[in-house]
Amino acid sequence: VSGQLSIVGLGPGDSRYLTAQAEAALAAAQALYGYGRYLEHVPIRSDQVRHPSDNREEGSRAAAALAHAAQGASVALVSGGDPGVFAVAARIGAPLGHDFCALSLSDNRKPWELIERRLDAAASAGFVIALYNPISQARPWQLGAALERLRRHLPQSTPVVFGHAVGRSDERVIVTTLATADPAAADMATLIIVGSPETRVIARPGRTPLVYTPRSAQGAHI
Amino acid sequence: VSGQLSIVGLGPGDSRYLTAQAEAALAAAQALYGYGRYLEHVPIRSDQVRHPSDNREEGSRAAAALAHAAQGASVALVSGGDPGVFAVAARIGAPLGHDFCALSLSDNRKPWELIERRLDAAASAGFVIALYNPISQARPWQLGAALERLRRHLPQSTPVVFGHAVGRSDERVIVTTLATADPAAADMATLIIVGSPETRVIARPGRTPLVYTPRSAQGAHI
Repeated sequence: VSGQLSIVGLGPGDSRYLTAQAEAALAAAQALYGYGRYLEHVPIRSDQVRHPSDNREEGSRAAAALAHAAQGASVALVSGGDPGVFAVAARIGAPLGHDFCALSLSDNRKPWELIERRLDAAASAGFVIALYNPISQARPWQLGAALERLRRHLPQSTPVVFGHAVGRSDERVIVTTLATADPAAADMATLIIVGSPETRVIARPGRTPLVYTPRSAQGAHI
Repeated sequence: VSGQLSIVGLGPGDSRYLTAQAEAALAAAQALYGYGRYLEHVPIRSDQVRHPSDNREEGSRAAAALAHAAQGASVALVSGGDPGVFAVAARIGAPLGHDFCALSLSDNRKPWELIERRLDAAASAGFVIALYNPISQARPWQLGAALERLRRHLPQSTPVVFGHAVGRSDERVIVTTLATADPAAADMATLIIVGSPETRVIARPGRTPLVYTPRSAQGAHI
């Protein structure tokens, strides 16, 4: 018997956002490995077994899933897919309609100075900036410092989106500005999109505004 | 009767990569609008009508779809979803495993100088760079100029991926280096991923190599 290991991206979490290919891979699995908070969103059958692990255990999780598959099992290793950047963007309009960066604010595996350098480069060249891993109990100050850094380059009126758990039942989306963006509005399930100077907000009475970055850019501000 | 307009991202094109939500929106549509080359990938029923248009007609296409919905019809406006960046990345390994930018090389709606400025910023700060809209009959030199620009900042050995029509039957993926990357290998259905100095290539005898960007970065090169 030869086993199989599939790496399956769940996207935002709701099954509506799974691809047919991802759904087939989940259905074929005997064992599902992954970060516990992702795994709990995967409905399983009685003949399937979940193997949840913590979010900092990537190495041992991958090794365990691989070893299980090597024994002949059909194994799925599930992850959140892309860091949710596109889910937030789709919910709020088209903030990533043009050139953008995705940047992790975690300084667990890279120096904070490198993150600052990347924030400077992206903002001064007019990229829209999607920030993931914005904040955690062990990293409480990084998001505030990043927003402060971006204020050196961008207008105070630049639109900022906080998207919490987009696509899930506890979804919460806030549209604000760089001047008033509050780091306390974010947690590890929050993605943040900081516009370019060309990003516009379209008000909708009684509803969350839309955020839109045109595909044309003059670059006069840089 | 009130109409409805859904905006549906097709992803790379094959139905395996559609989400359940996208599939439901396509099934509910009476009329499908979109760029002809995307629309031809959508199987339709006999009671559905395709309204193909050219790729430079975004404004009139959107207006026509909206007008049709306003008349009471159920309308789907289909697009390629994200510019295929994630499809190429998933096919080749994990080149976008860390901080990255997505950048359109089309200077139809922004000055070429702004594109150069963004290439400089992204490469010198160590972002992986995904290039879309790389080349067309009307824009034959831009990709060559962009690669030349990146050679100022990045090692000649930096991995470069050309992904043509990923997820479709005419898929073709090439892994090369910045020194040898040939613009002639690209067309409008090609996405290009240029690694950071930390991106690695893992050879697989007889198969396309894997490309991997670690989640840790020292930034010593910048």
